[in-house]
Amino acid sequence: MPNFKKIKVKNLEKFVTECFVKSGMSEEDAKITADVLISSDKRGIASHGVARLKRYTDGIKKGVMKPKANFEILKETNNTLLVSGNDGLGQPVTYKVMKLVIEKAKKNNVAFAAIRNSNHYGIAGYYSMMALRENLIGISMTNSFPLVVPTYGKNALLGTNPISVAAPSNKEIPFLLDMATSTVPRGKLEVYDRQGKKIPDFWATDTTGHPTDDPGLVLNNVKNKLGGGLLPLGGATEETGGHKGYGLAMIVEILTGILSGGAFGPFVYGKPNEPANVCHFLGAINIEAFIPLDEFKNALDSLISILHNSEKAEGQQKISIHGEKEFKRENEQKEFVEISDIVLANILEVGKSLGVNSKL
Amino acid sequence: MPNFKKIKVKNLEKFVTECFVKSGMSEEDAKITADVLISSDKRGIASHGVARLKRYTDGIKKGVMKPKANFEILKETNNTLLVSGNDGLGQPVTYKVMKLVIEKAKKNNVAFAAIRNSNHYGIAGYYSMMALRENLIGISMTNSFPLVVPTYGKNALLGTNPISVAAPSNKEIPFLLDMATSTVPRGKLEVYDRQGKKIPDFWATDTTGHPTDDPGLVLNNVKNKLGGGLLPLGGATEETGGHKGYGLAMIVEILTGILSGGAFGPFVYGKPNEPANVCHFLGAINIEAFIPLDEFKNALDSLISILHNSEKAEGQQKISIHGEKEFKRENEQKEFVEISDIVLANILEVGKSLGVNSKL
Repeated sequence: MPNFKKIKVKNLEKFVTECFVKSGMSEEDAKITADVLISSDKRGIASHGVARLKRYTDGIKKGVMKPKANFEILKETNNTLLVSGNDGLGQPVTYKVMKLVIEKAKKNNVAFAAIRNSNHYGIAGYYSMMALRENLIGISMTNSFPLVVPTYGKNALLGTNPISVAAPSNKEIPFLLDMATSTVPRGKLEVYDRQGKKIPDFWATDTTGHPTDDPGLVLNNVKNKLGGGLLPLGGATEETGGHKGYGLAMIVEILTGILSGGAFGPFVYGKPNEPANVCHFLGAINIEAFIPLDEFKNALDSLISILHNSEKAEGQQKISIHGEKEFKRENEQKEFVEISDIVLANILEVGKSLGVNSKL
Repeated sequence: MPNFKKIKVKNLEKFVTECFVKSGMSEEDAKITADVLISSDKRGIASHGVARLKRYTDGIKKGVMKPKANFEILKETNNTLLVSGNDGLGQPVTYKVMKLVIEKAKKNNVAFAAIRNSNHYGIAGYYSMMALRENLIGISMTNSFPLVVPTYGKNALLGTNPISVAAPSNKEIPFLLDMATSTVPRGKLEVYDRQGKKIPDFWATDTTGHPTDDPGLVLNNVKNKLGGGLLPLGGATEETGGHKGYGLAMIVEILTGILSGGAFGPFVYGKPNEPANVCHFLGAINIEAFIPLDEFKNALDSLISILHNSEKAEGQQKISIHGEKEFKRENEQKEFVEISDIVLANILEVGKSLGVNSKL
């Protein structure tokens, strides 16, 4: 198990921002990208935090991510946007387009954007939370590297394709769902593999297409495209509902890759030394177009409180609401964030190679 | 196992319509409701077909469903609608509001409606398919009787809350997801119970909150509100992803019951002899606001064909796309539809009690 160090958030922000600036990004875009990564760490989602820094700076070095790409609005109406990220990093384009979506939703009740030619955008929930802070319902989804097998298929053809929806509450912690449409994301297999643990049989399949309990085998197979992969939410069969998770992954491919005119399914990261063409879909719904905001928030409070206070299953202590643990963790880590020594060594190495001056 | 009889669709339509007219509905609303039910039978979804006729005519008799309710637009913008069904049947209001949503989406790119004070609306997919036929992306969801337990909870507090999304293809059969956010709907337990079969342990829990293999026990417990219920998609634990299905059920409660100012969670069908206050959410997205329609359809064709033609897991013959089986079945049952003799006897009894003249 790794040790964790408490790092001052302000220092980490400065350091990560400088890494991106030294990689060729503008100060503004570097700051946005740093904030998305560090927010993830603050919320306790280390897999999508600064641990990803090296993948991004490497992507820029290889030329598959463009540090100076300015996104382009290809088509615009009063409530829709079609955008090309022009192969830039996913965070700056998505952040800026979500701002426009929020503006449009405030003026015109609902708004959606489809973004193509982008890259990994961090946690889906970062962008739905931007709408949440403006008292809107926020929607964010993205396609991703094809790791997931369709029900009864052998090969990974769909991404883990997360869906995030956020909705504002009043006294209670707000609702924030941010879920991969696979039973688990790849990172979970990596954790089990490192700990030498077996995985349950709804998580992944081997090269025959049958469930396996060996996480290392799966990771190797998907890396080398040998067959098998992660299972959709619901597991390997229709009996356990696997076709539903597969259907949710399809919805994400349709709204992101297909609706944007970008890459979908196996075409995402389809060519080794070319840009990934990851695609996103963003939305915001103005609650006031339907009912008074306070009425909505109080009703959500009421549902949350009913769930919290209802009887637990035998042996259980708590019924959680989606996002609750992460909002609490974020609140604890406002000034200092825990980073594992492995990740810390990794990002210090990145900083050194880029000639970064700021200290952690 | 029941026997099936082939019934002429035209006769069934006439018969069911007359049942609703004799119950006090207008000819127009009766026809719409009959079509939603019979479409479900045609598509092979018997649980939501004319087998439900008696529940509706009984609901009308009891006074909890109003046969002559005219729906009311409570708030309207160029891309949103807030509607009260005024305790009428779910089908007529949802059909008519979906027509308005489609019109708005064609003019204004995207449109959404939240409907409250409604009733069971049949298959969610009926309404998303209305948008599909107009070459739009269609969205339909509804809350429902609280049958589903939150992860680690003991009591059923959320509906099976189906989500449907439809998207148009070109040469391939279109995409139509229509899924309960529980692992299985209640009807599946009824089937297993009748056949004396045990259920897998991701489907339902007993009164302690632990998974059970006894479908009859669960049906009795939920009917008498003794505790336990259906499990969300993903099963009983976070390890198998149950919190994700629970999160999807929450999204549906938020967009239907909460956004419409109607009933949510345990308040749906909350008072025995009063209207159910079921709530729906409808949406349509005009593809042309993003990319040319043909480009979208061809891309979806391409994804569907890649999935169809990709290698199968060992022992499997087919990778299905969502809605495929049902569209094929519908095509076979254009003129004659198979109805089980049990359902047939049941609806003939309804007809007799209402003094219906048309024959099956």
